[in-house]
Parts: sequence; structure tokens; C-alpha cells
Amino acid sequence: MENQQYQDNTEPFSGDFSDWIQTLTLLDGDAQAQCFAEMLDEAEPGFIALALESLPREQRLDRWQQIDGLARVAVLTMMRSDPRQSILNLLDDDEVDLLFAMLSPEELIDWSDTLPEALVDRALQQMGNRQRERYEIYDQFNESQVGRYADHRMLVLSDSANVAQAQRFFRRIALDCGDNVFITDIDDKYIGTVSRQMIFKADGDVALVSLIDEDKPVLAADTGLFDAAEYLQHSNETEMPILAEDGQLLGRLSLRVATEIIREHLESQLMAGAGLKEDNDLFAPVLKSAQRRAVWLGINLLTAFLASATISLFEPVLAQVVALAVLMPVVASMGGIAGSQSLTLMIRGMAMGQVSRGNLWPLMRNEIGISIVNGVVWSIVIACVAAWWFADPSLGFIIGCAIMINLLAAAASGVLIPMILDKFNQDAALSGSVILTTVTDVIGFFSFLGLATWIYL
Amino acid sequence: MENQQYQDNTEPFSGDFSDWIQTLTLLDGDAQAQCFAEMLDEAEPGFIALALESLPREQRLDRWQQIDGLARVAVLTMMRSDPRQSILNLLDDDEVDLLFAMLSPEELIDWSDTLPEALVDRALQQMGNRQRERYEIYDQFNESQVGRYADHRMLVLSDSANVAQAQRFFRRIALDCGDNVFITDIDDKYIGTVSRQMIFKADGDVALVSLIDEDKPVLAADTGLFDAAEYLQHSNETEMPILAEDGQLLGRLSLRVATEIIREHLESQLMAGAGLKEDNDLFAPVLKSAQRRAVWLGINLLTAFLASATISLFEPVLAQVVALAVLMPVVASMGGIAGSQSLTLMIRGMAMGQVSRGNLWPLMRNEIGISIVNGVVWSIVIACVAAWWFADPSLGFIIGCAIMINLLAAAASGVLIPMILDKFNQDAALSGSVILTTVTDVIGFFSFLGLATWIYL
Repeated sequence: MENQQYQDNTEPFSGDFSDWIQTLTLLDGDAQAQCFAEMLDEAEPGFIALALESLPREQRLDRWQQIDGLARVAVLTMMRSDPRQSILNLLDDDEVDLLFAMLSPEELIDWSDTLPEALVDRALQQMGNRQRERYEIYDQFNESQVGRYADHRMLVLSDSANVAQAQRFFRRIALDCGDNVFITDIDDKYIGTVSRQMIFKADGDVALVSLIDEDKPVLAADTGLFDAAEYLQHSNETEMPILAEDGQLLGRLSLRVATEIIREHLESQLMAGAGLKEDNDLFAPVLKSAQRRAVWLGINLLTAFLASATISLFEPVLAQVVALAVLMPVVASMGGIAGSQSLTLMIRGMAMGQVSRGNLWPLMRNEIGISIVNGVVWSIVIACVAAWWFADPSLGFIIGCAIMINLLAAAASGVLIPMILDKFNQDAALSGSVILTTVTDVIGFFSFLGLATWIYL
Repeated sequence: MENQQYQDNTEPFSGDFSDWIQTLTLLDGDAQAQCFAEMLDEAEPGFIALALESLPREQRLDRWQQIDGLARVAVLTMMRSDPRQSILNLLDDDEVDLLFAMLSPEELIDWSDTLPEALVDRALQQMGNRQRERYEIYDQFNESQVGRYADHRMLVLSDSANVAQAQRFFRRIALDCGDNVFITDIDDKYIGTVSRQMIFKADGDVALVSLIDEDKPVLAADTGLFDAAEYLQHSNETEMPILAEDGQLLGRLSLRVATEIIREHLESQLMAGAGLKEDNDLFAPVLKSAQRRAVWLGINLLTAFLASATISLFEPVLAQVVALAVLMPVVASMGGIAGSQSLTLMIRGMAMGQVSRGNLWPLMRNEIGISIVNGVVWSIVIACVAAWWFADPSLGFIIGCAIMINLLAAAASGVLIPMILDKFNQDAALSGSVILTTVTDVIGFFSFLGLATWIYL
């Protein structure tokens, strides 16, 4: 009977959430409004945010109007910054003030990374003094430091408390705020961490400080965001306290926030490969998107002209042997693909902190080894195909040598380029592949057409 | 004074873990052994696993020998499957049996995805009957279903229990096993979830079933792994029960495991762009890596020959106007870059469940719009450069038109290719970019050289 009751109330989730978004996007007008109303009843703000992002801008605003006041801040906070801004832009001043009145300092920090400064000031004016102070504490740290995203919602008790006081404290609070209690002294300086489980099991008159687990890790507030998230995810903890330089307890990093940080970092690496940003809106206005992407196309155009300039050095041989022009894409593309394999391996390894100066040479040896094996195999194959296709054994010899040279160059560049970019604090995921393709194009064309000039002319 | 004590014992983590791995990889012999011994003292198994993966294979095995028996299983479980296998391969039968004797069914499931079947059988023989049964329950589900990775370590109580019994139960257990207690009936069927916080606050004689929160979400065991992890991460829960079709409680999905699933999924998308796998070992044996990558190079070679074949259709005009050969890379690369921007946006949107049939046309309109704007801008720029470089206005006209056509084709393919691949259950992150580049190369060369033939010949 009990089981029956469960069956009636909650259907187990079976991966149908993306189906739900699909249904929503297939509908329009009143039917879409009704589907969205059902979502609002059942789904968490995170899903509502995902669903809103999936809608074209006009529909997005219509559906947004359906969300009631209290849920709006939570949904906006879960959205990527571009789509969030797309909604904020369309609200009038009163509506924006209404939102700001409900915003916590933590949420404002989240928003502030893209919010115009005037709006941040307006939001701050609506906050009480204590909230504004909290905002200013977070705001000391920049967007890549974990202190900026410290979460204030945690359990803190003074170093004079005993277990009975802690247990009474627990009974009063409504929400689960983490697995630990953080102990501070009278100046808000961090003293140690006690797990809730310990407090639950201990006798009432025991002093909390005597239960402190000395092995509990803590985070310095100026730690890199992704480093801190990785550290938490690879530990056995579900949360860690974040401390200012003077030992003051600023807040905590929870596993949920760490997950979000790791996800955003990996998504941004994925998007960077195409010169895009993680917070990109699927339905950004055409002109805005076009402008952003134009920069990337322009950079790429410069490198393409570099390849063209290389080719133009060899116009005489191209005019004489047109088969060279036909085979050029093969040389360029084999180098580009092989190089991007080494590059991707390096970028991933560097993101995980596994690749550094220390293992550069063993890695280089490995990648060069792989490129020799594949170079031999594929240059023979390609040489045979080319020689047969154009009935010209020297052409086969030329392209075979060029492929071999280009695969070696590709492996070396794939390992070195990200290391060099990292040394100059550049994001290898963003610019690595453009530079790599330029190198393999230039070396590929140069060796292919150079050899041809030497043999044919 | 208390604070002083903290200062002495625990230095706050400040992102120096990757520095630590770097130090390790820079050392060798005894110095490396000593550095690693310090890591073993201080770091969690997850870090030890990362550090081992960063070492070349000979050093990796030397350091592995330093890990003591009990920690070995935990470290191996945290490693990617390829490096894990690299260690297993080098152990003799007795050592392997020693490891297997400590393996839990959950860990064996993790390992079994890559472990040779004979070894899985050997591990199963070392397990007791109850453990073997648990393994078989998980093993009903395949590698993409959440039921396979259900975590047995959770708090379960019977539907006849009261709060006092639950509280006594909590006092006995040593570890934190999640924030909830799952209630089952006599047949192990799931009845509902009660939060620990509720139990903590309630009176001892209250029946647990009366505290059940009907709104707590549950997962069906055959839910897709990534869908389930996304669902958990976007909810407010820290764990969810996983149920078999008949309502039996199989285990739970915790936020930590969900984070790992999301990370592996995104990493695999990142690696797929270069035809690589997420569990790739940085220091895999050269021949093995070469063989794996050769396949990807071969596929890419076929598509490069397709581009060559397109060019060979236009040999007459190439023989006459050698500038065409010089400018070919510009046409191909602009199309490839613009297309990969649309493609990357689609792949990310599809991974998040935000892109589907429902918003295909609005998305297509957006991407085409962007490509018209950028097409106009860049074809004019490129036309001017080409006309000036070769002092030939018709060449400028030809390449301008070809760029415009190719950018339109790139946007359309960038949107359509991943949708079509998804329809046939193919991973767009893996094969999308190869297909896309083929399309943009062929269309680019065809329009550029075709127009040239029409105008010059």
C-alpha cells in the first residue's frame, strides 16, 4: 500500500527532461504557455533556466512573464550571463528594482561579472548595510579567485560553544547547510571544522573545540577558482571553508558550486576551440553574434593568408605541375589533424594539472614516436595513391616526404605550442589550434612545394 | 591560541597541487620517491591517481610500488581506465588476486568496463555470494545507464522504524553516507525519503513513514547516465535513490558521482573533437597510441582526397591561373572556421538538452543571419585583398562570391550535421567536425574553381 502511494505521487525520472524541453520548443502561443506552466510547477529553477535559454528571444520573454516574483531571481541566477542579460535588458526600471530588492550579495556577485556597473550600484543601494559589506568582502577578489564565490550559507559556531548548544542550533535551522560546523573565535577567525555527525554522536557537555578534526582541508581565498573546485572534487569532502589571508572565515565552497565551476571550465574549453565563450546565448541578436565571431574569422583569415603567401613562393612549379594544387589539401589536412590530436591531449592534461615542464620531454618523445609510426604508414599509403593517380612516381615520393615532415612538425608543435602559450598566460584551448594549423599549413606547403621545385624545376 | 594551533597544523590550500605534480615530474629516482611518499601522507587517492597518470610508465610503476596494500584499490579506482590497465598489466597473478580480494562490487563495475572478461571472472570468484549478487544486479544495466553505477553505501531503514531507532542507527555508523534516509518495505521496494535533518528534529516515537517528503525525486535505473547526473546537478538534492522497474531500491546517485559523470562527459566531448577517448593515457605505449590515432588519420585522409578530387575537376583553370591555387586555403579555412562555430554551439546545446527539433528552424535562421553579415563583411575584405595582390579584379569577384557561398553552406551544415548525426545516434562531437570540414572544403573549392572556370575559360 505504501508503495502504491509512492507510485501515484512521483514518477521516477527517466531522462525525459530534454524531451520536455523539446516539447516546449515545438509548441507556441497558449500551448507553450501551458507546457511552461507545468514545468514551473514541477521543475527546479535550474531546469527552468535551461528551458528559457532554449527559446528564441520573443518566446523567452513571454514565458519569463509567467514566472512569479519570488522564483525570478533564482531562475535568472541559474542562467548563463548572456541570456540573463537578454531578459534584464527588456525589463523596465521598476521591474529591475523589484528583482534587485530580492537579490542576495552572493547572487549579485554572480550577476556582477556581466552586469553594467550602473546597475550593480543600483542593486547595492537596495541592500542593507550588512549585505553591502558582505558584497564588498567578496568583491575584493577577482573573477578567477575562489574567495569571490564564497557561500555565506553555512553553519558557524563560536569556540566557546558545547555540543548541547550545537544540537539546539541544529534543531532550529530549517535547511541542510552542509555536513560540517565551522568554529570561529571572537574575531571571526577560523579555528577548525567539526562534522555534524560527530556532534550528533557526542555528549551534550563536550566542548566543540575538542571535536575539531585537524585533518580537514581549508582553502585560501585567493586560490584559483578551477584549482579549488578540482581540489574539492578530488577530496572526500562535501564542502571546504574559505579563509582570508588573516585567517578570517569568508564562507565555504560546496560540492554543488564546485561542480558548476568544473562544468563551466570544461564547457569554456570546448567552446574556446571555436573562438566562442561559455556564456554564449543560443539566440543572441544576429548583429551582436556576428560581431563577436567576426574577430575570430579575421584572426583566422590572417593565418590563412600566411599559408597563401607560402604557396605563392612556389608559383612557378604550380604553374607547371597542376597535380600539386590538387594534392595540397591532403598535406595540410594530415598535418592539422595529427597536430590537433597532440594538442588536445596536452590541453586536457594541462587543465588537469598533469602536464608541466616536468614531463615535457617524455611527452615529446612519446608524441614524436607516434608521429614516426603514423608518418611511415600514411606517407607510404599517400605516396602510392598519388603516384598511381597521376602516374608519376616522383610526385608520390614528394608527397610522401612532405607528409612525414609535416607529421613530425605537427607532433612537436602540438606539444610545444600549448606549453609556450601557458608560459605567457594565454589560453591554449582558445588560440592553440589556430597557431597550430598555421604552423602545419606553412610547414606542409613549404616542404611539399619546396621539394617539388627542387625535383621538377 | 586556538588559531595558532590551526596555523601550525594545516596550511590553507592555495592551488599548489599542480605545482606539486610538476615538482614530482621534475624529480627522479630517490628524490621522486621521497616527494611521492609525502604525497601519500597528505593527499587523497584522487590526487595520487592524477599524479601517477602524470608519470612516464617506468616511473609510474616504481611509485605504484610505494603505495601500501589498502590504498591501492582506491587509487586504481580513481585512475582513468587506460593508465589503470597499464598498472594491472604489470602485476603478477598473486598481486592481482590481492587487489581483487579488496574490491567491492561497485569498484569492480567501474573497472569491468575495460577489464578483460577473464579477469572480471577471477575477481568475482574472490567475492562472497552477497557481493557477487550485488555485482550481478548492477551488471544488468549497460555502461550508459545510471543503474550500473548505483552506490550501495546509503542509509536504508524499514517502513516500520521510528525516529528513535533511526537516531540510534545514526550514532552507530561512522561515516557520513548522505543527507537522507531511504525507507523500504519488506521486499526492498522503495517507499520514500526522509531527510536526516527531519529525523534529527523529530520526537523519538514518531513513525519514520510519517516524515516522508513526497516531493523527493527518484531516478529510474535505466535512465541515461549523463541525463541523470544533469538532473541531480540542476536539482537542490545532494543524492537521489535509483529504482529498478519493479520499484526495488538499487542504490543512490550522489552529487560527487554525478560531478564525475558530467566531467567525464565533457572531457570526452573535448577529446572527441580530435578523435580521442576520454580515458586516454598520456603515456600509452607508442604503438598502441599510433594504432588508435591511425584510424582517425585514415578517415580524415579519405575526406581530404574528396577535396582533392573536387579540385582535380578544375585542373584546366588551375593550369592557367596559378593564383587560384594560392588562394584556395583562404576559401577552405574561412568555411571551416565559420562552420565549426555553428557546430560547437549546436554540440554544446545538444549536450545540455537545449537544442532539438523544436528550435531547429529559429536556430538555423539565426546562424544564417550571422553568416550573411559576416559573409558580406569578409567577402568584401578578401575580394579587395585578392584583387590588389594579383592585380586582377575578376579574381576578387570570384573569391568574394565563393566566400559568401561557403559561409552560408557552413552555417547550414553546422546546424544540420549534428542534428542528422544525433538522429542516427552518432556522436556529433566525434564525427561532426570531420564531416563539416569535408562539406565546406568541397563546396568552397567547387564554387571558387567553378566560378573561375566560368569566368576565365
